[in-house]
Amino acid sequence: MCMVKVDDEENDGVLVPPANFSMVEDGIFRSGFPEPSNFGFLETLNLRSIIYLCPEAYPQENMDFVDAHNIKLFQFGIEGKTDSSSTSIPSYTVTEALKVLIDVRNHPVLIHCKRGKHRTGCLVGCFRKLQTWCLSSVFEEYKRFAGVKWRANDLRFIETFEVMCLRQCLYRIIYQYQGYGSNKRRLLYGEEGIQKPKIKSI
Amino acid sequence: MCMVKVDDEENDGVLVPPANFSMVEDGIFRSGFPEPSNFGFLETLNLRSIIYLCPEAYPQENMDFVDAHNIKLFQFGIEGKTDSSSTSIPSYTVTEALKVLIDVRNHPVLIHCKRGKHRTGCLVGCFRKLQTWCLSSVFEEYKRFAGVKWRANDLRFIETFEVMCLRQCLYRIIYQYQGYGSNKRRLLYGEEGIQKPKIKSI
Repeated sequence: MCMVKVDDEENDGVLVPPANFSMVEDGIFRSGFPEPSNFGFLETLNLRSIIYLCPEAYPQENMDFVDAHNIKLFQFGIEGKTDSSSTSIPSYTVTEALKVLIDVRNHPVLIHCKRGKHRTGCLVGCFRKLQTWCLSSVFEEYKRFAGVKWRANDLRFIETFEVMCLRQCLYRIIYQYQGYGSNKRRLLYGEEGIQKPKIKSI
Repeated sequence: MCMVKVDDEENDGVLVPPANFSMVEDGIFRSGFPEPSNFGFLETLNLRSIIYLCPEAYPQENMDFVDAHNIKLFQFGIEGKTDSSSTSIPSYTVTEALKVLIDVRNHPVLIHCKRGKHRTGCLVGCFRKLQTWCLSSVFEEYKRFAGVKWRANDLRFIETFEVMCLRQCLYRIIYQYQGYGSNKRRLLYGEEGIQKPKIKSI
């Protein structure tokens, strides 16, 4: 079944993270498009899923890699706009991707697009808003990865993205997400919607 | 005892990470100098220690913060060279800082200097070498945080820093460190040096 050959000797025994790789949170990573030379490194992440943000089909060798490691692939096809005057990425799609992202059952998860700058930067930016980061810190992080290629449109998208609705939905359905930290599971089940035990008087 | 007032209302309810903040690894963070406005965010990290890389005394309000949260402060006074032709940072000091950094008893730990670019970048770079990252990825990460302020001297320092001796020392004394991942504790106790239980024949 496994058609993936991870030739560490090709990499001279060293690990090669994908371009623009970083840890976002415990169990959440981001990067540019992973090449076969990155597969050895990716193995060390023990990924359970990948959030892939491009509309193009996943290359066969990457499909083989995810198959061989039982990694769930979530694809959200967002066009990579190069025209800075064009409309921003669709917020509905980002909301759907966020739902996958914050579900710990999908962790460890890698988010990637092509360069790990714009689409990935927008998704991570919206995630930071969910974590109640102040906007200037969110922008700083976005720009760190986008570098000189940062787009005003992306910042506007992040700024206007509405997290309140998603947060309220999460309070009810899954968990409350806030902050980093190894006082692990900053995910708290919301009180609302939890069935209280019924007290019977005998 | 606690003289620290973390006024979240001052931040309008949002969390403000220190400048140049990022997660390095599970339980390891990096940033520029934390200001009082960042204390609310830092609380979410549940830090056990801070590695501070400047020779200047820690400001009183930061001292109050670490005292109030029982955070251990490890100071390694490295001069912040602005003259790019001057000699690089002392490798002995970086080795000592690395020993503190990779000891999970000190985690979660925050590394910071002034801007989170050079001294912090060098320490993280050496840490990545310990993790057997390829040098080009180490440099990419260093430059992401240093931006246009990156220094050729720092890259040379990272490149020539000798991790082999430290790694062998760790194999014997503490643990083997490799890779990310939430297949947690990638730290393995070395076989050597562990006292075997003595079997007595009766």
